[in-house]
Amino acid sequence: MGLLSTEQKNLALTSLAVLLREKSAVLMEANSKDLEEQKGVLPMPLFQRLKLDNLKIEALVEGCHDLIQLPDPVGKILLSHPLQPNLLLERVSVPLGVLAVIFESRPDVIPQILALSLKSGNSVILKAGREARNTVGAFRELIDELSKRCEFLPNQWCLVLDSREEVRELLEMDDLIDLVIPRGSNEMVREIQKSTHIPVMGHAEGVCHMYIHSPCDIKMAVDLAVNAKAQYPSACNALETLLIDVGISEIFLPHFADVAELVGIQLRGCEESRRILPQIERAIEEDWRAEYGDLRLAIRVVSGLNDAITHINEYGSHHTDSIVTSDKAAAEIFLSAVDSACVFHNVSTRFADGFRFGFGAEVGISTSKLHARGPVGLDGLVSYKYKLRGGGHTVS
Amino acid sequence: MGLLSTEQKNLALTSLAVLLREKSAVLMEANSKDLEEQKGVLPMPLFQRLKLDNLKIEALVEGCHDLIQLPDPVGKILLSHPLQPNLLLERVSVPLGVLAVIFESRPDVIPQILALSLKSGNSVILKAGREARNTVGAFRELIDELSKRCEFLPNQWCLVLDSREEVRELLEMDDLIDLVIPRGSNEMVREIQKSTHIPVMGHAEGVCHMYIHSPCDIKMAVDLAVNAKAQYPSACNALETLLIDVGISEIFLPHFADVAELVGIQLRGCEESRRILPQIERAIEEDWRAEYGDLRLAIRVVSGLNDAITHINEYGSHHTDSIVTSDKAAAEIFLSAVDSACVFHNVSTRFADGFRFGFGAEVGISTSKLHARGPVGLDGLVSYKYKLRGGGHTVS
Repeated sequence: MGLLSTEQKNLALTSLAVLLREKSAVLMEANSKDLEEQKGVLPMPLFQRLKLDNLKIEALVEGCHDLIQLPDPVGKILLSHPLQPNLLLERVSVPLGVLAVIFESRPDVIPQILALSLKSGNSVILKAGREARNTVGAFRELIDELSKRCEFLPNQWCLVLDSREEVRELLEMDDLIDLVIPRGSNEMVREIQKSTHIPVMGHAEGVCHMYIHSPCDIKMAVDLAVNAKAQYPSACNALETLLIDVGISEIFLPHFADVAELVGIQLRGCEESRRILPQIERAIEEDWRAEYGDLRLAIRVVSGLNDAITHINEYGSHHTDSIVTSDKAAAEIFLSAVDSACVFHNVSTRFADGFRFGFGAEVGISTSKLHARGPVGLDGLVSYKYKLRGGGHTVS
Repeated sequence: MGLLSTEQKNLALTSLAVLLREKSAVLMEANSKDLEEQKGVLPMPLFQRLKLDNLKIEALVEGCHDLIQLPDPVGKILLSHPLQPNLLLERVSVPLGVLAVIFESRPDVIPQILALSLKSGNSVILKAGREARNTVGAFRELIDELSKRCEFLPNQWCLVLDSREEVRELLEMDDLIDLVIPRGSNEMVREIQKSTHIPVMGHAEGVCHMYIHSPCDIKMAVDLAVNAKAQYPSACNALETLLIDVGISEIFLPHFADVAELVGIQLRGCEESRRILPQIERAIEEDWRAEYGDLRLAIRVVSGLNDAITHINEYGSHHTDSIVTSDKAAAEIFLSAVDSACVFHNVSTRFADGFRFGFGAEVGISTSKLHARGPVGLDGLVSYKYKLRGGGHTVS
């Protein structure tokens, strides 16, 4: 796979897009069998994600076309450094090798990952759940057809598995698999992280914070907090805990509570915030670590910048945290001292996203500090190697 | 540690260099106690590495001065990208956080790692073996003095442990330690890789290859193979298996065998090479995976380029592999298809080294494909974060 040319990879992406449209009726028929079998069996959120429709297929086709437009992440010269006369060192980007993608329910992950793997020159093992077995079967036929049409693709460049037993075996193949990408619930990601020595790309949790510092523009602060919490509460970059500087809490909290009530945000707070807003629920220790994924929001009054930073580094998940302030010096301290993949000043946490960051394709959001951190684009699917070309150079 | 300025970090490095000279007598006295206690107890190679002398201390002082000259790896703007008017995205390098360095015998690892940690803004936990406990004690006092002289260093920026029980506990602290760096035998590295979910930087093995392709300059090929094997046989980038194209084996092998004998290289070969050189030992399957670390060398005649690439990807350790040929097209295929951190053309494998690559400081050589691969300089000790500065930007 690493030897494919950019043209070959883009040709395969074109073929994939064409096949998705050609086979859309077959795919949706197989999918409706899965939906029938799983009705009342699968929990509602998973059931909804199982569904494949024309809209999703068209989005996948568009995704292929977008990837064709992106520069090839492989073969980039990252460093070029002459060591001696006629001895040139180059650092060149190369595919990681073999990706293993493990996911529940959402069968549209298959073509999405296929497309990313093709563009980045990686082989891929896709491990779907049994609940999507008919759809997976239809995708397997699509992949066979794709391999036929693109004879330059190596044998077994892509495997699709669907039995539960295979996961454990996969996770033990340290020497064959270079990266595991889980796509599913927090529990699933945590479970996979705990049970393998292969690097795992992703994040189990998104406990994101916003800190309202004094001085700040109160209206901006209210807007940002409401947007971060309520615009799409189940996203991993949605706000879970709001911290408020004690110097501004008396003014900010009543304003915020009014707007929060209007949009349905349910507050639970510390003692000091409940003194100002007696109507709200009491927050307990677990609330500071909670990823609600809904309209609940924990709020806490803090004594200032350092207190806020300490809280975030202690209770957060190192995903995305934002400060709202008109004090630039305080903002810079926050951006440096908060140990998270994304740190924002006067911006909603919802901006933490590969597409919004302009990466063109998102592989996932990583809270690991090694390799790719934060929103990960195609660059997260490549490594590099050193090429050294000489004329008989020995060391003495 | 991540908030220290470049000036503060360089000041700490200067103080470390001064203290190493000031305390050299104390350090060597403590070290001689360890040597006395371990005489006849510790295996010879470990015993030799336990010794600290004036030469080593001066090299450490020089290492500090070299690091001062290097650019700060923290705070580099790696990407700057306006997303909307007044909304600027930056990717900025930051320290990894907490390093855990586990080593046997060699107490000079302590100041070396201290210096790298200071420059890269990382906290560090050093876990030494009991065999160096007196020397470690003297270093602990040196560190206390360093912390006193550099009051800007945060509390407990560096911990030095020396009991064996603590290793297991350390390796379980996934949430507190960001990177484990082992410095010791292959067995030790493998053991650590197997027993932790924390990323481990390093390599267990260096099974490096050289492939003599036809056509090539025979004299150059002999020189390169001898240099790669014999210049420093115990190095991880020394040659372990030599592959020879069947089209050139009849000419190359007799020449090579003559020179090999002169410098003491002991050959063991496949059937075909023994047909040409009947005097050499027979190689068995294990020889193709062996890291001898001495003057033994496995040789195999292969049918051509593809056969050589297949052998290397199957039996090698993905460390460093070199092709010798005058055919540039063949060389390019080798450089692309061999899946190793370092791939060379007409260069001795011994060049795979951070200092020779011009990185100025070497943290180690990594055979992992994620994060840092190959010889790793200071850049391997940093991660990055995304800073996004706006003016109240919400998502819709």
